[in-house]
Amino acid sequence: MTRNVAVIVGSLRKDSWNRKIAHALMERAPAGLTCAIVEIRDLPLFDQDREADPGPAGVGFRTAIRGCDAVLFVTPEYNRGVPGVLKNAIDLASRPWGQSVWTGKPGAVVSASIGGIAGFGANHHLRQTLMFLDMPVLAQPEAYIGNVASLFDGDGKLANEGTAKFLENFMQSFAAWVGRFAKG
Amino acid sequence: MTRNVAVIVGSLRKDSWNRKIAHALMERAPAGLTCAIVEIRDLPLFDQDREADPGPAGVGFRTAIRGCDAVLFVTPEYNRGVPGVLKNAIDLASRPWGQSVWTGKPGAVVSASIGGIAGFGANHHLRQTLMFLDMPVLAQPEAYIGNVASLFDGDGKLANEGTAKFLENFMQSFAAWVGRFAKG
Amino acid sequence: MTRNVAVIVGSLRKDSWNRKIAHALMERAPAGLTCAIVEIRDLPLFDQDREADPGPAGVGFRTAIRGCDAVLFVTPEYNRGVPGVLKNAIDLASRPWGQSVWTGKPGAVVSASIGGIAGFGANHHLRQTLMFLDMPVLAQPEAYIGNVASLFDGDGKLANEGTAKFLENFMQSFAAWVGRFAKG
Amino acid sequence: MTRNVAVIVGSLRKDSWNRKIAHALMERAPAGLTCAIVEIRDLPLFDQDREADPGPAGVGFRTAIRGCDAVLFVTPEYNRGVPGVLKNAIDLASRPWGQSVWTGKPGAVVSASIGGIAGFGANHHLRQTLMFLDMPVLAQPEAYIGNVASLFDGDGKLANEGTAKFLENFMQSFAAWVGRFAKG
Repeated sequence: MTRNVAVIVGSLRKDSWNRKIAHALMERAPAGLTCAIVEIRDLPLFDQDREADPGPAGVGFRTAIRGCDAVLFVTPEYNRGVPGVLKNAIDLASRPWGQSVWTGKPGAVVSASIGGIAGFGANHHLRQTLMFLDMPVLAQPEAYIGNVASLFDGDGKLANEGTAKFLENFMQSFAAWVGRFAKG
Repeated sequence: MTRNVAVIVGSLRKDSWNRKIAHALMERAPAGLTCAIVEIRDLPLFDQDREADPGPAGVGFRTAIRGCDAVLFVTPEYNRGVPGVLKNAIDLASRPWGQSVWTGKPGAVVSASIGGIAGFGANHHLRQTLMFLDMPVLAQPEAYIGNVASLFDGDGKLANEGTAKFLENFMQSFAAWVGRFAKG
Repeated sequence: MTRNVAVIVGSLRKDSWNRKIAHALMERAPAGLTCAIVEIRDLPLFDQDREADPGPAGVGFRTAIRGCDAVLFVTPEYNRGVPGVLKNAIDLASRPWGQSVWTGKPGAVVSASIGGIAGFGANHHLRQTLMFLDMPVLAQPEAYIGNVASLFDGDGKLANEGTAKFLENFMQSFAAWVGRFAKG
Repeated sequence: MTRNVAVIVGSLRKDSWNRKIAHALMERAPAGLTCAIVEIRDLPLFDQDREADPGPAGVGFRTAIRGCDAVLFVTPEYNRGVPGVLKNAIDLASRPWGQSVWTGKPGAVVSASIGGIAGFGANHHLRQTLMFLDMPVLAQPEAYIGNVASLFDGDGKLANEGTAKFLENFMQSFAAWVGRFAKG
């Protein structure tokens, strides 16, 4: 049985390191997981007064998440927290009250940065939010990808063997986690 | 000497309880503090590829923060974290690297919610970010305004005496804190 | 099949409100969960130099946790964080490296305080630690028990019907969560 | 004028890397700061029933903190949080209610670990607690000392020039911060 995984990248930058990591993860998805990036670029700022009608991009995003079996977040840290653009996407799809599209979907968090801290602050602030949304989130292995710029070659391909192996193992753990929770 | 305080409300909702609390705080500002709300509604989603040119709303927001002496955040909690719209505004004004307009400005955080938890999660996630931005943030008194809907009368005026007194004391503590750090 | 739940109370105070909440939870455990408090009072301060030999109390605590199927934490907040006494117990039983007795045990967190914030800060700092220990922790319902002193009668019995119902539901959710993970 | 700084090390291990970092910091204290480690090894577990009489070690610790002008915390991360032994010391000296010896003392936090994350989780959980204790804590520079085992030579002396310079600058920033708040 195939599970559909929505992959959400926490940065809008075209050459985002986290987008590269997301692709490296997707390439290593085991049989049984089908991964696709769901974009957050065109979403409006969340305004509760318009929560019932968040425009076509908002409706499309909610629909994409509602239709998936699991969610994989790959995110940088902005100012020691979750990027506003990512949190905004989460907020938008969590409303209106009682109609959150996140509820019960198994998830995982990967954070990456060019320094050694590897987005730890974003990783854990995000986990606090996902807990509230009633998403069971993979505990171990944690995934902090530090010094990310050193891991890719000039063509943007992952060139670090240890990281490649780690990401492959991570996706296997995630697949097992998803299998534990996904319906059907 | 007068210090200019930028007040930032973490919700876009027109009848936001936090906006009401912000006004209640501003009305109680002691002599020496001039407070004005700086709006975050029209900001674009932060995209590092466009950080040098974030459009007129982005430029205006950065200019407003650069020109103030201190910042007062009044925010709800969204999904146990900082509202994405607020975090996005902070991210946008923190860049480009080395040109953050937040650096060194004394700040304070107030959180309010209709339940008892009073935005604790947002309050502290926000503090972690402000620390990174090198903003000295008032420690005590903390300001968690719970059960906020019960504090106002039918005309939207603060009707709870205890809260009114607390907000007045809070603004005096904040003014003393700002005086300790503000230049000139 | 019966699952054994270790209940850990985060306060050493004899008349601890959290101990009362722990008992109220245990009384409402559904068939299939057998709960017993595991005491942390006599543990030594964790010292890595003595991790292989933490004394009889240390050995006993590790043995008790190793033998249980799941763990329920009921804790106050001390200074906006996890009580040191509770964190010390967790640290002690997490070592030596590779021999943590927490690994994989399903868990849940309840926090209680006499104010409205209800131990939110302790609750989430604790969750961050449990994630690291590879414990799947119940996400929803969250359990923040505020104004706890008002919930009990003069004989120390839970007298608030809404809370009683909430705790009963919580234990049912916890039992379902444990059933999802427990071995055998 | 000389300010007395209490240095608190968050690990009891004799050859603790954080103790080594603490000494490296103390050696680099600028004129005007006198630093001394205050030990936490012999403290009892905090028990509110005994808060008025925590024994000689407890009384001695409270007295030492009460007598200092500022506090420097140097700590590892245990299980993604503050070591229980450190949090216990903080809890013990924060009570009885209204008699906390921490109030108003300027502080700073350094975290170190043998990995890249450098104790980020402990660093920020600790800051949340210090905020509650009304301690103004240095925001920048943050101090995350990663890969700490590689920074010392065989004699236990700091051998990394970049780190040495960083610690020297850190102590100057801390001295300036202390000067801003210390009385007299």
